[in-house]
Amino acid sequence: MALPKTPALTTDCVVFDPKFRVLLIRRKNEPFAGSYALPGGFVDIGETVEAACRREVLEEAGIEIGELRLVGVYSDPKRDSRGHTVTVAFASVLPAEMRPKAGSDADGVEWVADWRNQGIGFDHARILADAERLVWGGQGNDP
Amino acid sequence: MALPKTPALTTDCVVFDPKFRVLLIRRKNEPFAGSYALPGGFVDIGETVEAACRREVLEEAGIEIGELRLVGVYSDPKRDSRGHTVTVAFASVLPAEMRPKAGSDADGVEWVADWRNQGIGFDHARILADAERLVWGGQGNDP
Repeated sequence: MALPKTPALTTDCVVFDPKFRVLLIRRKNEPFAGSYALPGGFVDIGETVEAACRREVLEEAGIEIGELRLVGVYSDPKRDSRGHTVTVAFASVLPAEMRPKAGSDADGVEWVADWRNQGIGFDHARILADAERLVWGGQGNDP
Repeated sequence: MALPKTPALTTDCVVFDPKFRVLLIRRKNEPFAGSYALPGGFVDIGETVEAACRREVLEEAGIEIGELRLVGVYSDPKRDSRGHTVTVAFASVLPAEMRPKAGSDADGVEWVADWRNQGIGFDHARILADAERLVWGGQGNDP
């Protein structure tokens, strides 16, 4: 039985380090080429969303993440100019600082301290704000 | 630009009434034909997951629901024999008792008080347990 066509499923991850910095990539490809964005990507058929999230952070930033907390599901049909994508967003807090290494999909990857004042692609600034509330309860180390 | 093929996206809803009963449908179609299941279905391209959730409960049970709370995202590749489906599950609590009316997709729809002791299709018993914890904090009106 063929399944109906539904929106494409993606996952994005808000990775915090102990200094309250956030792992952001510089996008190489459109949309939002050159902008910061959260690491993430499309979920493969046959993998869970949690596995896809861990795989994407490893591929794009060379970092293995531990526990994931569900931040939310973002499904506005206009959130991605390529077509209707629905993203499942997770947050993860690293126990120690780690040096990231950009994968081939990204122009760079870095820990960003003043992420509140950066332009961030897609609806990722909103996702980040929601993750901050979930993980730090608004009590983060505000710079 | 064509989007990659990803798992099919569905939504399911745990609707409680003020008596702590749960709205369950009798499935007409396989898989799990004849079993209880949560109201839900595939998300259309162009609609949000919240809108899809409200639409499915209205279509299958004739009930308009209010506020939705995100219960979780369930993505085990084996959870649906038709293929890999990922469901976004919500919970909603009705302010008053309402009489449901089965849609054409269901063999029946009813308020079930002893839902803990019923066979429920898919992974919906787990979703229901997670929703109970989220909404009632385990302090439900245990029969």
